[in-house]
Amino acid sequence: MTDTMHPFDRAMRLDHLDAGLVRGATEPAWANMVGPFGGITAAALLRAVESHPDRIGDPLALTVNYAAPIADGEFDIALGAARTNRSNQHWILELRQGDDVKTTATAVFGRHRDTWADTEAMLPEVIAPEDIPRSSFFEGVVWANRYDMRFTEGAIPEDGVLSESSTTTLWVRDELERPLDFAALAAVSDIFYPRVFLRRGGYIPAGTISLTTYFHAGQEQIDAVGSDFVLASAHANGFARGYFDQSAHLWSRDGVLLTSTHQLVYFKD
Amino acid sequence: MTDTMHPFDRAMRLDHLDAGLVRGATEPAWANMVGPFGGITAAALLRAVESHPDRIGDPLALTVNYAAPIADGEFDIALGAARTNRSNQHWILELRQGDDVKTTATAVFGRHRDTWADTEAMLPEVIAPEDIPRSSFFEGVVWANRYDMRFTEGAIPEDGVLSESSTTTLWVRDELERPLDFAALAAVSDIFYPRVFLRRGGYIPAGTISLTTYFHAGQEQIDAVGSDFVLASAHANGFARGYFDQSAHLWSRDGVLLTSTHQLVYFKD
Repeated sequence: MTDTMHPFDRAMRLDHLDAGLVRGATEPAWANMVGPFGGITAAALLRAVESHPDRIGDPLALTVNYAAPIADGEFDIALGAARTNRSNQHWILELRQGDDVKTTATAVFGRHRDTWADTEAMLPEVIAPEDIPRSSFFEGVVWANRYDMRFTEGAIPEDGVLSESSTTTLWVRDELERPLDFAALAAVSDIFYPRVFLRRGGYIPAGTISLTTYFHAGQEQIDAVGSDFVLASAHANGFARGYFDQSAHLWSRDGVLLTSTHQLVYFKD
Repeated sequence: MTDTMHPFDRAMRLDHLDAGLVRGATEPAWANMVGPFGGITAAALLRAVESHPDRIGDPLALTVNYAAPIADGEFDIALGAARTNRSNQHWILELRQGDDVKTTATAVFGRHRDTWADTEAMLPEVIAPEDIPRSSFFEGVVWANRYDMRFTEGAIPEDGVLSESSTTTLWVRDELERPLDFAALAAVSDIFYPRVFLRRGGYIPAGTISLTTYFHAGQEQIDAVGSDFVLASAHANGFARGYFDQSAHLWSRDGVLLTSTHQLVYFKD
């Protein structure tokens, strides 16, 4: 535990207290306006499974439900493999502080096979990150400073500027370069500020309720990204009655689809 | 319990044994090639929460992880509200047969507010269901006969006919007409045969591992559908290393976005 540890790795420090219990702590560097960045919580939950001795295979699907804000300080993750099959494994997790459940999650891990492969999702046509200035985020959103973000469309709108499209596309990498891994990919899959900001022209109270990420990339493809930028593009599908849903894809610079990720977000307007 | 009960309602018969345990049974009318139709399992899990005395609000998000095939006969659903907030509630569920966990799930329910609303997902331009003949499904897929399906694109391919697109769009309603409800919507959100069939030209072993559905529609919009057709359109995003993911939308005939639904599917090829 030294100050020279990468901020992401500091947030991923988990003690396995026993087979079904892991203890971690919030990291000030990943603070959101209320509680920590949802992506870092998703990453910690994924890492709790990844680092469990019973785990088999790679992450395939992760669903995280944000039930209540996590307070600054320690948290416990109760986890167990509800079922282990020959080639995949189903986990259930609860993140608690005291007796309060703050987050619930399920994760599917599995082994891969060589099969026919194809990508149908369209890689956005964008200019290189080197040709785009680094963006600043809202003041006070501490975690956003952990990333070097370069928007190619749909940057955070100025107040009162309404957009007809909710699409945001950006290049993103760790501010302090660090090789990509599954947990970091889980975090970056939640990189997008709320789509309702674009449509309504500025800040609106909003927060993710449920986040699902499908991992397309394997270890070799993630290793090939290294600490390079990944391209992230999100759009909303529908806004209604206080909630909207968002779908997104993350890509490597050479066009490998890394994750598909979806979330349901509440908003007040 | 009579033979005149609608097949969907027969599959939704659940006994609340105590606050945390519900008992149901598979219905032969909803049999898939192995175990029941995934959609009917999703519906039973949703209904277990809906019919729980502690439930607040409407379904917002449902994630179902298919861990192992459900055998014909009784099953138990262990469920509990991990957290109840003022306006939403987070549930965790496990479907078991004996000591075996067959399915895990999380559900978020919540109350709605009137807000600004808009739909960005594009309603497919299609001809009316009355102008399309009813399709037949694979022989032996019993559950498929519970639905009247009319494909506007991407019907089940003939052997050896490969498509460049994985998109399927169809009108669908219950074969025996029945007013739509949240549980039925959860079932129909899993209506699509595996996308890999289209791309590879015929039957390929495949099965859903994880299914997430976001419910955009409220009770009034669902009631307005009644027993009419809904329009369902799905496409794959990426196929790699034995898995693919699918994203889909369900619409009412007058263009209300009812659900966005995503799934991760394994395949062998």
